[in-house]
Amino acid sequence: MPDVIFPLDSTRKFEDQEKVGHNRWHPEIPPVATVRRGDSFRVHCREWFDGAIVNDDSADDILNAPLLTVHKLSGPFAVEGARPGDLLVVDILDVGPIPQEDSGPLAGQGWGYTGIFARNNGGGFLTDQFPDAYKAIWDFTGQVATSRHVPEVSYVGLIHPGLMGTAPSAQLLAKWNQREGDLIATDPNRVPPLALPPEPREAVLGSLPASEFERVAGEAARTAPPRENGGNQDIKNLSKGTRIFYPVFVDGANLSLGDLHFSQGDGEITFCGAIEMGGFVDLRVDVIKGGMETYGVSENAIFMPGIVDPRYSEWIAFSGTSVTLDGKQHYLDSHLSYQRACLHAIDYLTKFGYSPEQAYLLLGSAPIEGRLSGVVDIPNSCSTVYIPTAIFDFDVRPSAAGPHRVNAGMGAPRSNNT
Amino acid sequence: MPDVIFPLDSTRKFEDQEKVGHNRWHPEIPPVATVRRGDSFRVHCREWFDGAIVNDDSADDILNAPLLTVHKLSGPFAVEGARPGDLLVVDILDVGPIPQEDSGPLAGQGWGYTGIFARNNGGGFLTDQFPDAYKAIWDFTGQVATSRHVPEVSYVGLIHPGLMGTAPSAQLLAKWNQREGDLIATDPNRVPPLALPPEPREAVLGSLPASEFERVAGEAARTAPPRENGGNQDIKNLSKGTRIFYPVFVDGANLSLGDLHFSQGDGEITFCGAIEMGGFVDLRVDVIKGGMETYGVSENAIFMPGIVDPRYSEWIAFSGTSVTLDGKQHYLDSHLSYQRACLHAIDYLTKFGYSPEQAYLLLGSAPIEGRLSGVVDIPNSCSTVYIPTAIFDFDVRPSAAGPHRVNAGMGAPRSNNT
Amino acid sequence: MPDVIFPLDSTRKFEDQEKVGHNRWHPEIPPVATVRRGDSFRVHCREWFDGAIVNDDSADDILNAPLLTVHKLSGPFAVEGARPGDLLVVDILDVGPIPQEDSGPLAGQGWGYTGIFARNNGGGFLTDQFPDAYKAIWDFTGQVATSRHVPEVSYVGLIHPGLMGTAPSAQLLAKWNQREGDLIATDPNRVPPLALPPEPREAVLGSLPASEFERVAGEAARTAPPRENGGNQDIKNLSKGTRIFYPVFVDGANLSLGDLHFSQGDGEITFCGAIEMGGFVDLRVDVIKGGMETYGVSENAIFMPGIVDPRYSEWIAFSGTSVTLDGKQHYLDSHLSYQRACLHAIDYLTKFGYSPEQAYLLLGSAPIEGRLSGVVDIPNSCSTVYIPTAIFDFDVRPSAAGPHRVNAGMGAPRSNNT
Amino acid sequence: MPDVIFPLDSTRKFEDQEKVGHNRWHPEIPPVATVRRGDSFRVHCREWFDGAIVNDDSADDILNAPLLTVHKLSGPFAVEGARPGDLLVVDILDVGPIPQEDSGPLAGQGWGYTGIFARNNGGGFLTDQFPDAYKAIWDFTGQVATSRHVPEVSYVGLIHPGLMGTAPSAQLLAKWNQREGDLIATDPNRVPPLALPPEPREAVLGSLPASEFERVAGEAARTAPPRENGGNQDIKNLSKGTRIFYPVFVDGANLSLGDLHFSQGDGEITFCGAIEMGGFVDLRVDVIKGGMETYGVSENAIFMPGIVDPRYSEWIAFSGTSVTLDGKQHYLDSHLSYQRACLHAIDYLTKFGYSPEQAYLLLGSAPIEGRLSGVVDIPNSCSTVYIPTAIFDFDVRPSAAGPHRVNAGMGAPRSNNT
Repeated sequence: MPDVIFPLDSTRKFEDQEKVGHNRWHPEIPPVATVRRGDSFRVHCREWFDGAIVNDDSADDILNAPLLTVHKLSGPFAVEGARPGDLLVVDILDVGPIPQEDSGPLAGQGWGYTGIFARNNGGGFLTDQFPDAYKAIWDFTGQVATSRHVPEVSYVGLIHPGLMGTAPSAQLLAKWNQREGDLIATDPNRVPPLALPPEPREAVLGSLPASEFERVAGEAARTAPPRENGGNQDIKNLSKGTRIFYPVFVDGANLSLGDLHFSQGDGEITFCGAIEMGGFVDLRVDVIKGGMETYGVSENAIFMPGIVDPRYSEWIAFSGTSVTLDGKQHYLDSHLSYQRACLHAIDYLTKFGYSPEQAYLLLGSAPIEGRLSGVVDIPNSCSTVYIPTAIFDFDVRPSAAGPHRVNAGMGAPRSNNT
Repeated sequence: MPDVIFPLDSTRKFEDQEKVGHNRWHPEIPPVATVRRGDSFRVHCREWFDGAIVNDDSADDILNAPLLTVHKLSGPFAVEGARPGDLLVVDILDVGPIPQEDSGPLAGQGWGYTGIFARNNGGGFLTDQFPDAYKAIWDFTGQVATSRHVPEVSYVGLIHPGLMGTAPSAQLLAKWNQREGDLIATDPNRVPPLALPPEPREAVLGSLPASEFERVAGEAARTAPPRENGGNQDIKNLSKGTRIFYPVFVDGANLSLGDLHFSQGDGEITFCGAIEMGGFVDLRVDVIKGGMETYGVSENAIFMPGIVDPRYSEWIAFSGTSVTLDGKQHYLDSHLSYQRACLHAIDYLTKFGYSPEQAYLLLGSAPIEGRLSGVVDIPNSCSTVYIPTAIFDFDVRPSAAGPHRVNAGMGAPRSNNT
Repeated sequence: MPDVIFPLDSTRKFEDQEKVGHNRWHPEIPPVATVRRGDSFRVHCREWFDGAIVNDDSADDILNAPLLTVHKLSGPFAVEGARPGDLLVVDILDVGPIPQEDSGPLAGQGWGYTGIFARNNGGGFLTDQFPDAYKAIWDFTGQVATSRHVPEVSYVGLIHPGLMGTAPSAQLLAKWNQREGDLIATDPNRVPPLALPPEPREAVLGSLPASEFERVAGEAARTAPPRENGGNQDIKNLSKGTRIFYPVFVDGANLSLGDLHFSQGDGEITFCGAIEMGGFVDLRVDVIKGGMETYGVSENAIFMPGIVDPRYSEWIAFSGTSVTLDGKQHYLDSHLSYQRACLHAIDYLTKFGYSPEQAYLLLGSAPIEGRLSGVVDIPNSCSTVYIPTAIFDFDVRPSAAGPHRVNAGMGAPRSNNT
Repeated sequence: MPDVIFPLDSTRKFEDQEKVGHNRWHPEIPPVATVRRGDSFRVHCREWFDGAIVNDDSADDILNAPLLTVHKLSGPFAVEGARPGDLLVVDILDVGPIPQEDSGPLAGQGWGYTGIFARNNGGGFLTDQFPDAYKAIWDFTGQVATSRHVPEVSYVGLIHPGLMGTAPSAQLLAKWNQREGDLIATDPNRVPPLALPPEPREAVLGSLPASEFERVAGEAARTAPPRENGGNQDIKNLSKGTRIFYPVFVDGANLSLGDLHFSQGDGEITFCGAIEMGGFVDLRVDVIKGGMETYGVSENAIFMPGIVDPRYSEWIAFSGTSVTLDGKQHYLDSHLSYQRACLHAIDYLTKFGYSPEQAYLLLGSAPIEGRLSGVVDIPNSCSTVYIPTAIFDFDVRPSAAGPHRVNAGMGAPRSNNT
C-alpha cells in the first residue's frame, strides 16, 4: 500500500480533516501535497455529499440533498516538473471503498447509495418521467453490491472515481464562466437550471488564505460538469488499471479527484446515479513533456481502460430513436434517443415486477453499456442500452413463457418533489 | 446452408432479378416469400447502392452517389401466424460477403467501401469539418479487412446487416410522414436536409401492381432512418448469433433487410460509414404471440448480441463534451459531445501521419465503441469513443518517445463538394 | 473467396477426386499444388472417415469404423522458397462446413457426428469406463450445433482443423518409426494398441507413382498422433484468425490438413471426439527464413489463436487428482488427473438426467477447457475441466433446490464392444 | 470489510499469534472459530514459509527452504450445521496482499517471490533441466507485479489462495496415508521423493492438546498435494468472485486455507511457483445439505470462477508431445507433453535474451494457460501452453525482423544444488 498523502478520518467532517480538500475549481487553490514523477501514493476520498445521505428507508435526504456543497474533492496534488502543455499521465493502481471499515454512517463503510433527484433539486436524465426523489441503498459483500430496495439483482463492482482532473488556468476558468454564463442567460429561471454559476456559499477552497476567499469563491467553477480538465466525467470505465492522460494548464498540474462509485452504468442516468461512496484511490503519476502538442490534445482527457472489469458475455439491449414520447420528431438528437432507449428498458423491466423507479435506479447503477449506435441516419439517431443478463437472479430474456415476477419488496423509498 | 429464398445474381441489377426487393417502406409492398415459425432460410442482399460505387481510386462516385435509390432491400418475407401485437423473433444465424465470389465489380465480391458524403449530397456526422467527398476501398482476406487508402490498420469483421425491420402499418406510416414532414417544414431548404420525404423517383416496390405504384410510391417512407420497425438502425452489434425481437405491425410481419456491413464503428459516423458490401444472411424466425404487450414493447427492437464478436482487450479512448469547436456551451447535447470526442480522436491520429479524412474513414469503419458516458452533469454531457489498439500495425499508445509515423501512401481519394 | 486449389466433389469418394490427397505422412508424397509466399487459397477437406459414418440412430458404423483409412488429408501443398530450417507461417483465414451444401449423406453437409470408439476398435480416453461404441449426430443451424442424441445443449462452433502439418524429412520419419516401434514392442498385443505402425492396407498416397507405392506405404507414418510436424494436434483453438508457425523439414514444406471439427473440447476425449465434419479452409502462407533457429523451434508448432472464439464468461469446473478410481496413488500423472476430472464432470451431469455416455459425448464435443492446474504437488497432479454454463438450456449450477431433470430422449445410440 | 476471525500480526511468527493455525491435515485439529451459514468473514494468511524467504538478491533461502514447515494454514473454521455428505459452499469475496502494509520483511508486504527449488530440496516440474535453486522477487504496484530479476514483463494479479480445503475424516486420512505410503514404498530413497509421509518435526497443530500431539502429528497428512478435500490444488482461477463446493467429511466441515499467490500460471510449474505472499481472504460460507449425493460429488471440489480475472485477448502458444527430450516415445503422457510444451516456450523466450531460468520463473508466475489439448491420439498426447503477449513490454511475436533483445539485467539469483 503506498503512502497516504491525503488521509480522511471517517469520524470527522470534510472541512475538519488534517488536510482539507476543495469543492470548486480554481487555479489558486493551493496544493495539499507535491509528488514527483513516478511516485505512487494513496488518496482517501469522501463521498460527494460528505455524509448527508444516510443508510435508511427514506428519500428525504435525497429530496433535500445539499447540492451547493458538492463535490468534496481530494487534492490538489502538484506534480513536480509538470508545466502547461504537458500531458499528465495518471495510473489508477487501485480503488475501493473505505479500507478496513465495513460498517458506519458514511457511504463507503460497507454500503453506498443511488438517488433520483427531485425535479426541483437537481433533476436528472428522465426528470420529466420521474419528478420525485427516490433512493436505493446498496450493501457491499466483497466485490458485489445488492440492495433491499432493488431486489433480485447484484453487480460486480466496476469501481472508479467519477471525478478527476487538473486545475484550470485563469484563462481557461474565465472561458468556462463566460460560456456557461451565456447559456444560463438564455433561460435563467429554468428548473432544473441549464448550468450552475460560481457560488461562494458552501465553497470549500482548501488552504486558500481567508483574504482571498471571497474573490476566488466568486470566480471558482462548480464541479458538476466535465470540462477540458477532465473533471466530473463519470466515465464508468476509469477503473483500476486505467491510465489517463490529462492536459496540464497550470504549473504542477494540480490534480484533484473524488466522487467514487462502486458501480455505474453509462450515462449515470439518475444524476445521483452510480452507487455513491467514499473510499481510497492509489495513483501513480508521470508527465509527457509537451504532450498536448505532440499528441494533439487541446482539451479533454485521453485514457486507456484497465483489463479487470467485470466480464459479461450475454446482454439484453434496447434501442431508441430521436422521437419524443409524445411523437415529435427531433433531428439527430442522440441525447433524446438514449432517453428513449432507457425508457424502453424501464418499460421492459416493469413487466418483471419492478416499479419504474426501481428499474431507473437499476439502470443508473448497473454496469450497463450506452452506445451511440447510429448518428447519421436523418432524422433519427439510434442509441442503444445493453444490460448484462447475469446481474439478474432470474432469466430476464423474452420468451414464449412470459416474464418471471420479481418480489418487489418494500420498493424504493420516495419523497415527493415539492 | 439453408434454402435461398431470395437469390441475387451478381451480374444483374437489383430490379432485374428473379425476385425483386424494394427500397421504400410501405405495408402494401407484397411479400416475396412466406416462411413458417421455426424456419431457417438464406437471403442474399445487394449493397445499398446496387453497384454505383466502384473499386477504384476516385471519389467521384461517392460525390455523385444516387441517394434516391437506397436502400436496396431484400424482402418482404411474411411469417405465417405473425399478427400485429406479436414480437417477431429473428435469429441471425450467419452473415457474410457474397458467397463463393471473391472478385468482381460489386462490393461484397472480396471488397467493400467506406465513403464520406459531400455536404451537398448527404453530408454526415462531421460534415462541417469534412465538406468534400472521400472514399476508401477495403479488401477482404478471410475475416480481415485492409485498405490501400488507410494503411497500417486491419479489422476483424464484425459483419452485420445495417438495416432490418418489419413493415409499418398504414397508421404507423402516416405517423412517420406527419412527424418527419413537420420537421422538414421547419427548414425545408436546409443542406443537408433535416429529413427525407417520400419520393417516387427511383422507388422500387417489389411486385406491387403498376396500378398502385404511383399512390404507394408517394406515401412510402424512405429507408434512411431507424424507426419503430427497426429499419436502418446501423447497430454494429447485430452480428452473427444475435437474436432480435421486432414489433409486428401488419399480418405476416413482413420482414425486410439489407445494407450489409463488413465492419462498422458505433455511430457509422461517415454516413456511408461502415465497410459497405453485398452478401448473404441466414435467418431463423419465430413469433412470441402478444409479445408487445407482454414485454412492454411499443416501438423499437430489443436484441441480444451474439458471442463471436472480435474480442479486443486494450483500447485507447477519447472524451468530448457538449461545447462547440468555437467554444459555445450547449446544454447536455450528447450528439455534440460525441462529435467532439471523435474530433479529438481524429486530431490524435493525425499526429501519427494519417490525414484527417483517413482518420475519419477509420473511425467510421473500425469496430470502435461510442459511449454515452455522462448525460446528467449540467451543462456538459460527456461522450467517449474507444478504439482497439490491436487494429493498428504499430503502437498507438501515447508515450514519451512520441508517435510512430504512418506511411500514408496515396491517401484517401477526394472529390470536392460542389 | 480465394481460389480453390484442392476441390472435393461431395458425390465422389476421396480417391476418385480430381486431385487426390493422402492418409499417411511421407516426404515422397508429391505436392498436389504449389503456392507462393503471401498467397491465399481455399482447400476442401473430407471428413476423416470419408463418409463411413452416417446420419442415423445406430452406432454400428462407429463400432466398425475403418481406422486403417484415416485421416483423409488435403495436400500436400508446396510453398515456393520454403526450405528446411524455415518456419512456415500459416494463417487460417476462414474455416467452415461444406459450403453451399446443407443436407446430404456426408458429414459437413449440415451435420456432423461424435463417436465413442469401442475398446476393441480404437478405444479412447475413458475406455475402461466406456468399452462400447456410441454415436451422437449434431445438426448445424448457422453457428450453432444441437443433437437429438444429447438434448438441451447447444454449442456455438469453435470450428478448426484437427490436423495440419508439414511433411517429415526421411530422417524424421525414420525417427518416428523407430521410437513408436520401440514403444509397440513393449506390449505388441495390447488392446487398444500403444501406437499404430506403418500399414500399407488402405494407404492413399496421392499421385505417388505406383512403382513406389509399396515401399513408401510400408514406411509412411500413420496420421493419428501429433508429432514434430504438427499433425493431428486436435487443438480446439486453431480456429479462424489463428496464425501457426510450423517447422519446415523438406523443400516446399509440403503442408497437408484435414479432420475438420465443428466444435471440440480440450482433449477431444472421446477419440472420435469433436463434432467431425468435412468442409473448407481458407489459408494464407508465408515463410520466416531460418526461423527454426532464430526462434528456437526444433519441433512442434507455435501458434497465436484468433479473437473470434465463442466468448463465455461463466463456467462450472471440476477437479481431479492422480489417484485411480480404485484408489491407487500415481505419481504426478496429469493424464490420470484429467481422466478423474472428466469422470467427476460426468458423475455430475448424470445427476441432471443425462446418461453417462451422453455426458461423455458432451465433454468431447463442447468447447470445454481442460487445464493442467497443478503439476508439482507431489504425489498428486491436479487437472481441471471447465464447462461453459451457457451451453445448457437449463441452470446447471449446484443449488439447494437440486438439479433440473433433462428429458434424455432416445439417448445416444450404442453398439456393444465385441 | 467483514470481521477478522483469524488475525495475523506481521511482526510475529505464525506460532506466536493470538490464534494459531496448522500445517498438517487431521480431523482432530480443533477449530479456531465457528461461523454460521451465510456468514462473511475475513481471514489473514501467512505466506507458506512464514518469512523464511526474504527480499534480497540471493537464492540461498530457496536452496535451504524449510519444507517440513509448510503450509502455514489459517483455520480450521467450523461451519454450524455442516455434516458429512454435505457440500460446503465457499465464496471468495475478496483476496489480496497484507492490507495496509506495503513494505516490510514478510512476503505480502508489497512484494512476493517465486522460487525454483533445487533437486535435492524439493525439485520441480523441470528439475532435470533446472537442478539448482533460483529466486525472483516481485514488487507490487497496485494490481501489477514486476521484478528486478525478470525484466520487461508485468502481470496484472490473478490473486488466489493456492490451498483451501475441508478436514478429512479419520477414515479418509487413513486412506491417504495408505495409498501414499504404498507409492513411497516403491522407491523410498528417490530424490526428489515420490510423496511426503507424515512428519512430526515442525508440525503445527493449532490448539491441539499437548497430550495428543505426538499421536496426531504422527498421523496427520502433509499439505503438499491436493486430495479429496481440495487442499493444495494451486488452481490459479480460484480468484475473487469464485464459488467453490467442497465435500464435507467431518462435522463442521473444518475449512482451512493459505498459500496465497499474487499471480500464477497453470501448473505452478516451478513448485515454489506462483508469486508467493501472505495476505487476506474474505469468505462467505453456506451448505447444501446432502449435496455430495445430490450432485454426485464423491471427492474433489467443484467450482465456478469469478468474472474479474485479467482479460487478455492475444496469446502466443507452444505445443508439446509425449516424447522425451532424448527422443523416447511415451504413451499418452500428458504430464510429459506439458513439460515439453513448457520447454519449447523456454527455448523461445531465451531467443529474446532471457536466461532459461528467467523464462522458467516467468512461466511459473505469469497467468499462462496450460491445456490438455489432445489426450487420445496414440501414442502422443498434445499439451499446449498459452502466454498472453500483453505481459511483455515488447513485441513477443515471431516475425521476419527477428526477436527483440531483453536487457536481462542482474538475472535471477542462483544457488547451486548440493
